[in-house]
Amino acid sequence: MKILIINGPNLNLLGKREPEIYGNRNFDDILQTFQHDFPDVQIAYYQSNVEGELINRLHEAMGNFDGIILNAGAYTHTSVALGDAIKAIALPVIEVHISNIFSREDFRHVSYIAPYCKGSIMGFGLDSYRLALQYFMMQEKKK
Amino acid sequence: MKILIINGPNLNLLGKREPEIYGNRNFDDILQTFQHDFPDVQIAYYQSNVEGELINRLHEAMGNFDGIILNAGAYTHTSVALGDAIKAIALPVIEVHISNIFSREDFRHVSYIAPYCKGSIMGFGLDSYRLALQYFMMQEKKK
Amino acid sequence: MKILIINGPNLNLLGKREPEIYGNRNFDDILQTFQHDFPDVQIAYYQSNVEGELINRLHEAMGNFDGIILNAGAYTHTSVALGDAIKAIALPVIEVHISNIFSREDFRHVSYIAPYCKGSIMGFGLDSYRLALQYFMMQEKKK
Amino acid sequence: MKILIINGPNLNLLGKREPEIYGNRNFDDILQTFQHDFPDVQIAYYQSNVEGELINRLHEAMGNFDGIILNAGAYTHTSVALGDAIKAIALPVIEVHISNIFSREDFRHVSYIAPYCKGSIMGFGLDSYRLALQYFMMQEKKK
Amino acid sequence: MKILIINGPNLNLLGKREPEIYGNRNFDDILQTFQHDFPDVQIAYYQSNVEGELINRLHEAMGNFDGIILNAGAYTHTSVALGDAIKAIALPVIEVHISNIFSREDFRHVSYIAPYCKGSIMGFGLDSYRLALQYFMMQEKKK
Amino acid sequence: MKILIINGPNLNLLGKREPEIYGNRNFDDILQTFQHDFPDVQIAYYQSNVEGELINRLHEAMGNFDGIILNAGAYTHTSVALGDAIKAIALPVIEVHISNIFSREDFRHVSYIAPYCKGSIMGFGLDSYRLALQYFMMQEKKK
Amino acid sequence: MKILIINGPNLNLLGKREPEIYGNRNFDDILQTFQHDFPDVQIAYYQSNVEGELINRLHEAMGNFDGIILNAGAYTHTSVALGDAIKAIALPVIEVHISNIFSREDFRHVSYIAPYCKGSIMGFGLDSYRLALQYFMMQEKKK
Amino acid sequence: MKILIINGPNLNLLGKREPEIYGNRNFDDILQTFQHDFPDVQIAYYQSNVEGELINRLHEAMGNFDGIILNAGAYTHTSVALGDAIKAIALPVIEVHISNIFSREDFRHVSYIAPYCKGSIMGFGLDSYRLALQYFMMQEKKK
Amino acid sequence: MKILIINGPNLNLLGKREPEIYGNRNFDDILQTFQHDFPDVQIAYYQSNVEGELINRLHEAMGNFDGIILNAGAYTHTSVALGDAIKAIALPVIEVHISNIFSREDFRHVSYIAPYCKGSIMGFGLDSYRLALQYFMMQEKKK
Amino acid sequence: MKILIINGPNLNLLGKREPEIYGNRNFDDILQTFQHDFPDVQIAYYQSNVEGELINRLHEAMGNFDGIILNAGAYTHTSVALGDAIKAIALPVIEVHISNIFSREDFRHVSYIAPYCKGSIMGFGLDSYRLALQYFMMQEKKK
Amino acid sequence: MKILIINGPNLNLLGKREPEIYGNRNFDDILQTFQHDFPDVQIAYYQSNVEGELINRLHEAMGNFDGIILNAGAYTHTSVALGDAIKAIALPVIEVHISNIFSREDFRHVSYIAPYCKGSIMGFGLDSYRLALQYFMMQEKKK
Amino acid sequence: MKILIINGPNLNLLGKREPEIYGNRNFDDILQTFQHDFPDVQIAYYQSNVEGELINRLHEAMGNFDGIILNAGAYTHTSVALGDAIKAIALPVIEVHISNIFSREDFRHVSYIAPYCKGSIMGFGLDSYRLALQYFMMQEKKK
Repeated sequence: MKILIINGPNLNLLGKREPEIYGNRNFDDILQTFQHDFPDVQIAYYQSNVEGELINRLHEAMGNFDGIILNAGAYTHTSVALGDAIKAIALPVIEVHISNIFSREDFRHVSYIAPYCKGSIMGFGLDSYRLALQYFMMQEKKK
Repeated sequence: MKILIINGPNLNLLGKREPEIYGNRNFDDILQTFQHDFPDVQIAYYQSNVEGELINRLHEAMGNFDGIILNAGAYTHTSVALGDAIKAIALPVIEVHISNIFSREDFRHVSYIAPYCKGSIMGFGLDSYRLALQYFMMQEKKK
Repeated sequence: MKILIINGPNLNLLGKREPEIYGNRNFDDILQTFQHDFPDVQIAYYQSNVEGELINRLHEAMGNFDGIILNAGAYTHTSVALGDAIKAIALPVIEVHISNIFSREDFRHVSYIAPYCKGSIMGFGLDSYRLALQYFMMQEKKK
Repeated sequence: MKILIINGPNLNLLGKREPEIYGNRNFDDILQTFQHDFPDVQIAYYQSNVEGELINRLHEAMGNFDGIILNAGAYTHTSVALGDAIKAIALPVIEVHISNIFSREDFRHVSYIAPYCKGSIMGFGLDSYRLALQYFMMQEKKK
Repeated sequence: MKILIINGPNLNLLGKREPEIYGNRNFDDILQTFQHDFPDVQIAYYQSNVEGELINRLHEAMGNFDGIILNAGAYTHTSVALGDAIKAIALPVIEVHISNIFSREDFRHVSYIAPYCKGSIMGFGLDSYRLALQYFMMQEKKK
Repeated sequence: MKILIINGPNLNLLGKREPEIYGNRNFDDILQTFQHDFPDVQIAYYQSNVEGELINRLHEAMGNFDGIILNAGAYTHTSVALGDAIKAIALPVIEVHISNIFSREDFRHVSYIAPYCKGSIMGFGLDSYRLALQYFMMQEKKK
Repeated sequence: MKILIINGPNLNLLGKREPEIYGNRNFDDILQTFQHDFPDVQIAYYQSNVEGELINRLHEAMGNFDGIILNAGAYTHTSVALGDAIKAIALPVIEVHISNIFSREDFRHVSYIAPYCKGSIMGFGLDSYRLALQYFMMQEKKK
Repeated sequence: MKILIINGPNLNLLGKREPEIYGNRNFDDILQTFQHDFPDVQIAYYQSNVEGELINRLHEAMGNFDGIILNAGAYTHTSVALGDAIKAIALPVIEVHISNIFSREDFRHVSYIAPYCKGSIMGFGLDSYRLALQYFMMQEKKK
Repeated sequence: MKILIINGPNLNLLGKREPEIYGNRNFDDILQTFQHDFPDVQIAYYQSNVEGELINRLHEAMGNFDGIILNAGAYTHTSVALGDAIKAIALPVIEVHISNIFSREDFRHVSYIAPYCKGSIMGFGLDSYRLALQYFMMQEKKK
Repeated sequence: MKILIINGPNLNLLGKREPEIYGNRNFDDILQTFQHDFPDVQIAYYQSNVEGELINRLHEAMGNFDGIILNAGAYTHTSVALGDAIKAIALPVIEVHISNIFSREDFRHVSYIAPYCKGSIMGFGLDSYRLALQYFMMQEKKK
Repeated sequence: MKILIINGPNLNLLGKREPEIYGNRNFDDILQTFQHDFPDVQIAYYQSNVEGELINRLHEAMGNFDGIILNAGAYTHTSVALGDAIKAIALPVIEVHISNIFSREDFRHVSYIAPYCKGSIMGFGLDSYRLALQYFMMQEKKK
Repeated sequence: MKILIINGPNLNLLGKREPEIYGNRNFDDILQTFQHDFPDVQIAYYQSNVEGELINRLHEAMGNFDGIILNAGAYTHTSVALGDAIKAIALPVIEVHISNIFSREDFRHVSYIAPYCKGSIMGFGLDSYRLALQYFMMQEKKK
């Protein structure tokens, strides 16, 4: 099973800045623990701060992955284009957020991507990603 | 580890009506599979259509459970009182929804309980509950 | 033909208080005139001030009644859960109101239950119920 | 007893187009069944697509009819002038709609005429008119 | 003089949780000090987390009490039904709040019960109740 | 000097209905007093309940009148088309209202015609028209 | 007959600045022409840029004047207190504006004083005042 | 191929007034150039300032034309009834506007007819009509 | 104990106008009864219709009073500056209103000063002030 | 004549996905038919999913093209920057959309680019582009 | 070069209260450092808590100063009259704020004076004033 | 001292287009004058039309610069991601705008970056940048 994790704007700073929000480990380390915890899943990773490149990557994933875990960061709340991209590709996409967007500013209570995602997981820190991986594993077992 | 699953209004109809939305198994059967899949967790269950009784049950859970999985159904979008109850008790509460609330009517895009919950999981059908249980397991292991 | 009339919050005060709005006869007397006027219909009655108990009663009505006449009172304007309950059960439900909700405060111009009801009748005093009974009779005759 | 039925914009197409919404009988046929079902009521009929002509007809009805059944169609949601006309004439006017306006687009959830009508009946197809006639009959009997 | 104090949702936790907001004394102790401070008033107390039961209790108070002190908690901001209940009964009701609702979230700046209450007292902690009792005493003396 | 007075929807009822609002004299009598008070002005009058006919009349007035006094009634608050008509013709148009639109419902606080009118006079009963005539006289004298 | 003209903020600049809006004559000159045109009216004048002093002047006018002509300038759109003052005094107040407030920014389309005024005259430049004086004259003659 | 061009309110003034907006040729001349440019299309024309007559004309077009080009003018932004008419008839309707409605006042950014039209063409002056004709020609050729 | 009572705009008219709202006693008389009822409190009084003078008086109160009772009248709903002044001074300020602001127009449901006040008391007529004095007395006794 | 067609986000998927919306031909094929149909126009093509690259391309077009046909896709509804770019360059830009944006979600009813475009053509599928080309041809012929 | 610094409501408390926001130096001291740093500028100072007096001072500045630095405090967000005053006088006015108004409550994100000011400087503490002085110096040098 | 100036979308056109807004000098020339005027500051410059690249550049600036001057152009009003980037990096960022955003369209009155910036300077043309540089100089001197 091949899963692509996509991180959006500012998430390249994970482990580098604002540790009280984002923890103090960078995503490369985190990916290794993910890979370790889910040995049956082949995990690929992509991060970009550019909205359009995230769209490009979603397009390219068609045919190459079984599912996508997407933390679109701030683009969650502003990008109609990203939502359209998710709708256009046939892959199941899971929306994840490190923090709970409902506990933050009003303009973060909107998600333009949620309506096109399989489901959403938010507020569990990096475990949000882990639960998404878990979900894909569950589905695999059901087959 | 003791976890309480609380279901809100109309969720007693699971498996009885609108199978295209809620599936065709009732929650008692489902609970058995949850218990089977998570043998290390002691799962208790409560359902009520009465907002105030859900609040009562949340209060009573203090000291008796390690965590709560709450699908507040339609009260998610209207009950300030339920949010206050979650805030008042010291237990970690996970908000779950069977469907993705962002894909439904506008008045369901609001959650009065999310800001006080540990996190939210929505859109994965009954697997939303399963992922919540999984999360509590993960935390247990970290201890 | 079996019809259940359900009255929501504060409607137990009919005939007791605010006679200029609600008349000076209590609902038990009124029900007798309904029964007298519609001898071919078996009329049952339920009233509660508790939102969740109204939901419970709607659920229980499945299989036991041919139709429901619901005056949800103030819950009309706030209860998403009641609307969900009506949607979930297979029975035809008619929304009735004693007064015309559009002549009152702005927050009463919203109905969360109307979209899931067969139809709405409002503004005719207690005759709103009578017209609803009439409708069920008409349908019976068409069969 | 003399009752005037007034139909607003596009309701001349009843029975001609969109049968899934408006049925497949034109209003002339329907009127005959109304007349047949309510032999004690003298039913007159008027239809216009012109807002101002509907107002004219409401004015002219004063002194000539005992009541009016008005399906203002789309003007329900936009015509302040029609509401003023109903308020100005002394006749009881019943607002009817074939479909339930609360199940349709947001801009149809507003009624500028309801506050000035005796009551509203909506969602029962052509039976909405029939129930309105029934109401006038009930009032007649009470005299 | 007989006064009924009614507390709404989550106020049973007074003295048990969130002492920084609600103080560290439970309401039974507090009631004793109220009774001690106002020996000429017979104070009864009721608390429920169920909206409808609060309505029931308001109805039952008619004829049995001279006034009501109501802290409707979170239902203040969402319950049209509670406002209707206050309007329907003939007793003077005083709205009280422990904290100042205008200093909290936007959705707490609305009160559906205030328009039907004699007056509102908020922000004085438990002294809000005490001032309400004082008011009833003042009125008694004026007689 | 030739002035055209145009009255919009329901204003044909002046003197016939709701005397507490519109007085008990019909507009024909009123016009005579206007003509008597302003002997130097040739006053023409037009009334229609049809929005489009009011537009037609505005168009036709070009070249035939020195100014227009327009009481657009309820169309004031809904007719973008009427505003466009005023903008398109070269004549000075004065908006008049019998009552003060700001003292009435919120939806009457909007005027789609005011931005294109020379000025607005409202709240003086039939004297609103008289003041408008006075204004045209003043301008005439200034020439 | 004694009439008080009150001008609000920035209207002391009439004739001094922005002649394209306010003309090039100062209000003292203008007042003389008013007095000349209306010899039977005793005209007093007050201007202040201070909201509270305008309120003071309105209060003091009670018993000393037969009517007030008020151009509240920008306070029209923001001052609830000024509206309350007009409501509190027994004198007829006419709201005037030099320009048409509906042709300007959205925040100028609101008038907090109009609901308590006898009527409103706007858009006629300084003739707005003259028409208001005319109105008071008309009323005088009717006596 | 038979195409009906319908123009709404104030568009009879084309070529007569406001040439900077509407050009200086009247629509009769323009129609001749259309007919000349599209010799294979039989072009009929209708204009009215009355909303209801535009609806009448749309109804009558059924069975008599292959398509309609509609410039509804200001009714575009206010007429729910016109949108219903377009929805009800089976003909393809193209919405055209001479100017770009998005460059004008906010209340012109709404189109109640667009959702039921085949497509919309706006901002190209009279060429908006020409492009609509071109579109019908293209479709004809595809057959 | 020294308490300053500050009254805002139009409250100088207490006892002079609109007795059905404000009673028929002027505030000087009222103050004497306050002083009589609370002999242990030294009561000072200030009233102004000028927003900025109310701010001045609040500033000057620092160091000279133990608490302030403020009825800001209409400035309650519009004055951000007054709220800032209360926040800036260290004294406890109690917001009082004679009537219940929630029973009046929508624009009176907002309080810009409440968030910075110790608490709010409204709807009890002049007893609102009396309860505020009572509160300060209670606090004094607790010391 | 040289025309640049620019397609925005997700439009690279034309012909690849969601054929019911976007047809089953990719844009390269489509371009060939455009070129074939408009032999006198030199058509260039650019597509990007990156908002900023679309802006870059618009800038570069200055001096190199006679006009631009822009389908900005989802950026239409969110990109103020794109609108600014169109305003800044001197070339005529035509906004095109394959579907009718008014028939889709509310957040697609806004266009930040329309106010700066020559005109808009929407709802005609790929013929929207063809009509835009046609428009440029018409203008060319007029020279 | 003569510059007038005007401070609005509550800014007389600078250096006296809330030092964490406003610093611990009063404005007189601060002015001296300004004068010291800008020896070529003649700096005058005015502060008032009264909106109308700020307007008066702006008017009086005409002809006496080369520019104005205005910190309107809370009136920034509520005073249309102050904006009108700035528009009316011919002097360049620079809006300054000590804190960044966008980091504070929503009702402070509006500025009624900004549209009429030369520019705005906010968030730099007392250096906001210093930068404004700097700007005037720069302009002087350019002459 | 090392300062990075970052310009957002369309600002590469400075000096090339719309000289009435942006002046007629390109930014390279301007930078030279900046460098000349501030010889003690090392000024670096970056411009991009791509939102994500602006974010990249902000990230890279950490550790390499003492401060950033950011004119985010139109992204100011739409980019939550850019605001997050500023919040995440430890450098002081000053928001600058050439024109006053409050004098332009409503959608430009919002700034998603201001809350995370040290301060904002707008409306002074290119001097906005100069004042920002000045501010950094002032801070340097204070050290």
